[in-house]
Amino acid sequence: MLEELKEEVLEANLELPRHHVVLYTWGNASGIDRERNLIVIKPSGVPYEYLKASDMVVVNLEGEVVEGNLRPSSDTRTHIELYKNFPEIGGVVHTHSIHAAAFAQAGRPIIPIGTTHADYFYGPVPCTRPLTKEEVEDDYERNTGKVIAETFRDLKIDPKSTPGVLVRNHGPFTWGKDVKEAAYHAVVLETVAEMALKTFLLSPDARIQNYILEKHYERKHGPHAYYGQVK
Amino acid sequence: MLEELKEEVLEANLELPRHHVVLYTWGNASGIDRERNLIVIKPSGVPYEYLKASDMVVVNLEGEVVEGNLRPSSDTRTHIELYKNFPEIGGVVHTHSIHAAAFAQAGRPIIPIGTTHADYFYGPVPCTRPLTKEEVEDDYERNTGKVIAETFRDLKIDPKSTPGVLVRNHGPFTWGKDVKEAAYHAVVLETVAEMALKTFLLSPDARIQNYILEKHYERKHGPHAYYGQVK
Amino acid sequence: MLEELKEEVLEANLELPRHHVVLYTWGNASGIDRERNLIVIKPSGVPYEYLKASDMVVVNLEGEVVEGNLRPSSDTRTHIELYKNFPEIGGVVHTHSIHAAAFAQAGRPIIPIGTTHADYFYGPVPCTRPLTKEEVEDDYERNTGKVIAETFRDLKIDPKSTPGVLVRNHGPFTWGKDVKEAAYHAVVLETVAEMALKTFLLSPDARIQNYILEKHYERKHGPHAYYGQVK
Amino acid sequence: MLEELKEEVLEANLELPRHHVVLYTWGNASGIDRERNLIVIKPSGVPYEYLKASDMVVVNLEGEVVEGNLRPSSDTRTHIELYKNFPEIGGVVHTHSIHAAAFAQAGRPIIPIGTTHADYFYGPVPCTRPLTKEEVEDDYERNTGKVIAETFRDLKIDPKSTPGVLVRNHGPFTWGKDVKEAAYHAVVLETVAEMALKTFLLSPDARIQNYILEKHYERKHGPHAYYGQVK
Repeated sequence: MLEELKEEVLEANLELPRHHVVLYTWGNASGIDRERNLIVIKPSGVPYEYLKASDMVVVNLEGEVVEGNLRPSSDTRTHIELYKNFPEIGGVVHTHSIHAAAFAQAGRPIIPIGTTHADYFYGPVPCTRPLTKEEVEDDYERNTGKVIAETFRDLKIDPKSTPGVLVRNHGPFTWGKDVKEAAYHAVVLETVAEMALKTFLLSPDARIQNYILEKHYERKHGPHAYYGQVK
Repeated sequence: MLEELKEEVLEANLELPRHHVVLYTWGNASGIDRERNLIVIKPSGVPYEYLKASDMVVVNLEGEVVEGNLRPSSDTRTHIELYKNFPEIGGVVHTHSIHAAAFAQAGRPIIPIGTTHADYFYGPVPCTRPLTKEEVEDDYERNTGKVIAETFRDLKIDPKSTPGVLVRNHGPFTWGKDVKEAAYHAVVLETVAEMALKTFLLSPDARIQNYILEKHYERKHGPHAYYGQVK
Repeated sequence: MLEELKEEVLEANLELPRHHVVLYTWGNASGIDRERNLIVIKPSGVPYEYLKASDMVVVNLEGEVVEGNLRPSSDTRTHIELYKNFPEIGGVVHTHSIHAAAFAQAGRPIIPIGTTHADYFYGPVPCTRPLTKEEVEDDYERNTGKVIAETFRDLKIDPKSTPGVLVRNHGPFTWGKDVKEAAYHAVVLETVAEMALKTFLLSPDARIQNYILEKHYERKHGPHAYYGQVK
Repeated sequence: MLEELKEEVLEANLELPRHHVVLYTWGNASGIDRERNLIVIKPSGVPYEYLKASDMVVVNLEGEVVEGNLRPSSDTRTHIELYKNFPEIGGVVHTHSIHAAAFAQAGRPIIPIGTTHADYFYGPVPCTRPLTKEEVEDDYERNTGKVIAETFRDLKIDPKSTPGVLVRNHGPFTWGKDVKEAAYHAVVLETVAEMALKTFLLSPDARIQNYILEKHYERKHGPHAYYGQVK
């Protein structure tokens, strides 16, 4: 069942420690089959070096395990909430990568101050509000996803052009058109965060012109994009 | 004698340079056999690349070598003091990992400001007071262990839920139910310390709600824990 | 066509991720054949691990593809502008290396404060002004090259003795007598930037005597240079 | 001639990039045969990956090449000056390692604030004064060595118990009883510098009690040392 997606989800999970955005079991990647509304996700707490495609767990949008012998990631309900709220995405990744987590712990969005950021994220990568006591105690992981969706709704950010968020005091979630892109964005976000932190050490008030942001985003993602090869 | 424990202690020692928390010979891991009250510990000053299980030294709770041709770690008496004071622990690790040592040198506890911390340490990772001149000059290593125990007693911290400490101007000690977990906590503590340092560069007053700390600790370690696989 | 130059350009491109100054596809290296006025450059958006010499694209000074099945780097016009304005250079490299990009994002030149800098760059590595809205919207990449040339002209810096620049809010470009040297300078510049950033954390007003700068530059590059082997 | 020493000097040179204290050709290690007053040193500007024992250059205390087809390191005269002034040392290493160079560029000694430092360096690792214009222009490398010796003489520091120095705006030199120990001290100094820099980010006024420094130095190097194995 969903063998190809399982391979993709496995490979995206393995990409995370390879780029040092995940230590031990501290991350998870999932992909969705939009036709069947089934999600393939990493099992909870299994070390990356032993992961096999057949360990991946298949869950439905209610969070019920449809296939697999292992428990799904403890963050599964956050993934589900993102898939429900952001219908255009096909993959989700969560990490505790150091520099992105530092911004999340500081409660600061990553504002765009360079073209590296602008090449992937249109505007700031937002940081959510803290969850309330009630949201934490009752269905914590689902509420984490709801607060992410609320953040994008309130700030009128399009999740497709800003494929990542910082959950306050926690760490980053990223997504993409598929799980491979979601993992790619997790690595990019960590690098953008490191660059931003080091920039602020040199100049706390660093800023950038909006038209440079527009240009860089457009040349990669706009209707007249000219980065990369014609597909 | 204690062949299985020697293998575990060797493996835990090797985990430390693998995760860059130990340079050259700057660390040591030990495990205890609680039934026989015997400790297996790394020999002093032997490079990790040449360590064999048979090099591990067996000492009793008086610090006497019971088996082994090499001198035990110079920090052996600190390990012994921890085993005596914290009867629920089965392994101890000492490193000079850079970010944890920076907090120890700064004399600052690592306060919890994120869920990565909360997943492993319940509340601040404390920093001991400096040892007095007398404590340093007379039985230094044993007194280091005594001051760690005093810190946990005075601050009413449970060593089982906060499995690590910073020794002032020195570096971290961590522990766990066995030596493998103690080494795991050494790597986790270094990462938590790096995240905290970088957070404070972004926001010196970063803080977190207590109920988020509770939730994260409970979901991994509480009676209703749901992280990882059922054992 | 230009098979030897293609091999050199490939090798210089591969040097960049090897030294961690390029993540994924975020960089490009080119070399020029000055007799034929033809440039060999990396194709756009192709991962480094799959690059072959035969993938390299040959373009003329008008930016037209003369040979190759792939699109040239999206930064090709910046490279061309540099080759036109700096007739003594034979190779150009662009990266988003973290510490050099941090200075670029902060809008700060890297002033010389040590002999490591002085060994390779004579005086500050300048940072360009931001491009205007018009310059960004109309022929952005070419104008990036023009603004680099303007910076060197206005500040009266000789591009041969200062083989690198920071493009404001973007990242570094470096060059050299050939593409190998341009890549070498990209790695050197990143290291010099990291050293400078960390120096400023220790002492924001760090400076150096001019006669030490002169000496270090001269002993490597002057008429009486005595560093390295006689060629 | 001096084949064994050549092997030791080669191995010490290779240890430097292995521990990331040397990039490209930015470092050099030498050893001395005190009976013959001959120094074996790395050739200038030769990449580490191609170094062979037979490339090592033999020079006398006047700096004349006694054996070898390659030019000796451009820093040879600094090494010679150190061997002349510090008769108890057997090896010298120079690097541009990032954190030690940052302290050198900042003109700050590395004061002892932790036991990692105290285990290897007795008191501050000093930073020299800048060389004068005359010292730079006339016999620069020899004067660098003279200023290092002056620093130790003026501050009444014993080079045997403080086996390293920061040359102002330049970088570290370290030494030891042989070239292997000199290289070891180069790696230790870089780590101590990184720890110190990060400590100062957390607490600019970090200090340590003198009696802890004494204890740690003595337990490794004093007449009753008990670290490591009995030799």
